[in-house]
Amino acid sequence: MPSKSKQPAGKLISFEGSEGSGKSTQIARLAAHLQQAGREVVATREPGGTEIGEQIRNIIVHNSKGDEMCPETELLLFTAARAQVVREVIVPALTRGAVVLSDRFLDSSTVYQGIARNLAAGPVSEINRFAVGPVMPDLTIVIDVPTEVSLQRVRQRASDLPDRMERENITFYKKVREGYLLLAQQWPDRVVVLDGTQTPDEIDRQVWAIVQKRLG
Amino acid sequence: MPSKSKQPAGKLISFEGSEGSGKSTQIARLAAHLQQAGREVVATREPGGTEIGEQIRNIIVHNSKGDEMCPETELLLFTAARAQVVREVIVPALTRGAVVLSDRFLDSSTVYQGIARNLAAGPVSEINRFAVGPVMPDLTIVIDVPTEVSLQRVRQRASDLPDRMERENITFYKKVREGYLLLAQQWPDRVVVLDGTQTPDEIDRQVWAIVQKRLG
Repeated sequence: MPSKSKQPAGKLISFEGSEGSGKSTQIARLAAHLQQAGREVVATREPGGTEIGEQIRNIIVHNSKGDEMCPETELLLFTAARAQVVREVIVPALTRGAVVLSDRFLDSSTVYQGIARNLAAGPVSEINRFAVGPVMPDLTIVIDVPTEVSLQRVRQRASDLPDRMERENITFYKKVREGYLLLAQQWPDRVVVLDGTQTPDEIDRQVWAIVQKRLG
Repeated sequence: MPSKSKQPAGKLISFEGSEGSGKSTQIARLAAHLQQAGREVVATREPGGTEIGEQIRNIIVHNSKGDEMCPETELLLFTAARAQVVREVIVPALTRGAVVLSDRFLDSSTVYQGIARNLAAGPVSEINRFAVGPVMPDLTIVIDVPTEVSLQRVRQRASDLPDRMERENITFYKKVREGYLLLAQQWPDRVVVLDGTQTPDEIDRQVWAIVQKRLG
């Protein structure tokens, strides 16, 4: 029987889904559950999560209203921020036994730059692997909402994303959604899809049930 | 017999070598020769060469005095800037028939992040290939100077590089030098090594002779 003082195993849980799917709400709620259960929680976001990553985020957001950034550059910038947050934040946190909650992780590159922007799957996967090193999510929660619902929610809130989002066409966001559903089929042990049209309370209960089971 | 009005073939010539090897001087001189010969010249530098690339350069230079940026992030940032300059500047220039002179290109990543910082050669090469797409230099001129000469020259001039350079140890710069000499052995048709301890005039004459021969 393990001693109570034994350090718990660190876990990485990533949240994925289109803009407006409700990821940040659920991350905040899950963080509260975990802290009440006595776990150290480290929340991070992509791109960003480190000083260097936030500088990279600025480049991406600053250039999000034009179309001058090519998809290859976009992929390399996202993965540069990811490489940094993995080594500076996530690996030390996992080593301490913390639960890391990441608002987007490598699946976002697979889906956005790979599937939706048509970059070849092989190099995207190689570059993702290089960026994350040995760190893979223990659990990935995709919050799935129909594209129209996602667009409607984004338009209702003030953020730096609507311009960028509106610039893309509906087809792009349909590809994003389908991309996530495809990933869930490919990685059934890691990726769980939840219906994002439920109330936040309902989704919260499902997330917490899944996480409790996974944390053992 | 080709007509005189036929557009000349675009060429990409990259200059490589350690800091203080004299690359910029030789690029300026070669640009003058080419322009006198009636060629359109486009000069670019890495990281940078585009608005997005200069923003990436700022991140790299800004973080060059600490050791917080991991080598993986550094590689992905350099290649992000490269992906952008290739598609935004180099490909259109080559299509117009211009001669593009690049102050550093993909060999810098192979040597600095790969050989000198010990990142695995396979992924560095894959990521380089992804960043440049089908664009490879027609000619790469390595200006080779002994490490001590390079360090001495850098210390004598004002720039943003000395701090970073002094932070690295001599062993690092010896690896850089040896890395370039290794590349020249691997790619004898593309990479030419010139002795950077000669006078600028002597090097200039050799560069121009080689380029004239290559431009046909």
